[in-house]
Amino acid sequence: MSKAVDFYFDFSSHYGYFAAHLVGPMAARHDREVNWRPIMLGAAMKRSGNTPLTSQPLKADYVLRDWARMARLHGLPWRFPERFPVAALAPARGFYWMTDERPEQARAFALAAFAAYFGEGVDISDPEAAADVAADVGADRDGFLAAVADPRIKQRLKDETEAALARGVFGSPFLIVDDEPFWGCDRIDMAERWIETGGW
Amino acid sequence: MSKAVDFYFDFSSHYGYFAAHLVGPMAARHDREVNWRPIMLGAAMKRSGNTPLTSQPLKADYVLRDWARMARLHGLPWRFPERFPVAALAPARGFYWMTDERPEQARAFALAAFAAYFGEGVDISDPEAAADVAADVGADRDGFLAAVADPRIKQRLKDETEAALARGVFGSPFLIVDDEPFWGCDRIDMAERWIETGGW
Repeated sequence: MSKAVDFYFDFSSHYGYFAAHLVGPMAARHDREVNWRPIMLGAAMKRSGNTPLTSQPLKADYVLRDWARMARLHGLPWRFPERFPVAALAPARGFYWMTDERPEQARAFALAAFAAYFGEGVDISDPEAAADVAADVGADRDGFLAAVADPRIKQRLKDETEAALARGVFGSPFLIVDDEPFWGCDRIDMAERWIETGGW
Repeated sequence: MSKAVDFYFDFSSHYGYFAAHLVGPMAARHDREVNWRPIMLGAAMKRSGNTPLTSQPLKADYVLRDWARMARLHGLPWRFPERFPVAALAPARGFYWMTDERPEQARAFALAAFAAYFGEGVDISDPEAAADVAADVGADRDGFLAAVADPRIKQRLKDETEAALARGVFGSPFLIVDDEPFWGCDRIDMAERWIETGGW
């Protein structure tokens, strides 16, 4: 049984953005590593029949209010991106290009990509924009752009998404802790309680 | 601005069942009353385009596991009702028959109806079964059955549901605290924090 916290997310997910800032400190409090695992949420939504939150009447108004209040609560910049939702393939592929050999850089890139999209409204689904973010955290810009178009990296993202679906992942953020699934940003507290108590 | 916590729910909602046990103690910690407000969740789902959790692939497996673990966490009996989902009109109407004049009885009935459905699997959408639960908390059984068929009470439930939708309610449970909306059982903690801090 892995002791790492598996953290599944999509770079186009508002709650994924907030969770990205909360999961690391939570895991660190319990000496756990975090496996960051970007996935293609669209594929999960196709499987589960879900639709983007902002396309659902009533719920759309609620989540807009909730995102703003989550941002205030956690002291994070937040704005509604001009383009939303986007298929955030470029940052997800770039992440997998980095993570095996440079996990620290990959993590820094993930946080920076989220901050660019939800903090500044930068369309990170554009490979050039994502490459700028990668360069900012010290990655090779041309290497990043090559990776985004690399069939092996494309396949890696597909494989990671399929593996996540096979484990029951259907949303973002989604944590798996000691084989126990926790869906949603507001379940990080329960995941922590699970770690603390060994489950119930 | 009302100081009461508005608690919207449907008697056919698993998370409404858990919330019904959590909202009262939370409000009491802050000297707040709770306005219990059953609604017809089906009408809200029609508006928002949502579907029952158990009909959504992947999510269905997750929520089944989550309900069992919520029950264990909070020490509440839980089983998956043989009939689910149901249109829980009978208990909702019976609740509105009681609540204006006998609010304590209405609250006791709500908890007992939830316990019968999710704890014992009794189909509370059946007026006779709901009337049994009402009688157990001291209500007049025949009066309850008459109320369930009373056009004024039927209209009351429709009006309450419409009023909830007009306030943006789209799910169960749904709390409104000092005009601030909180959706879901796992947002009761945030609602409490909102009360404690006056909002942020």
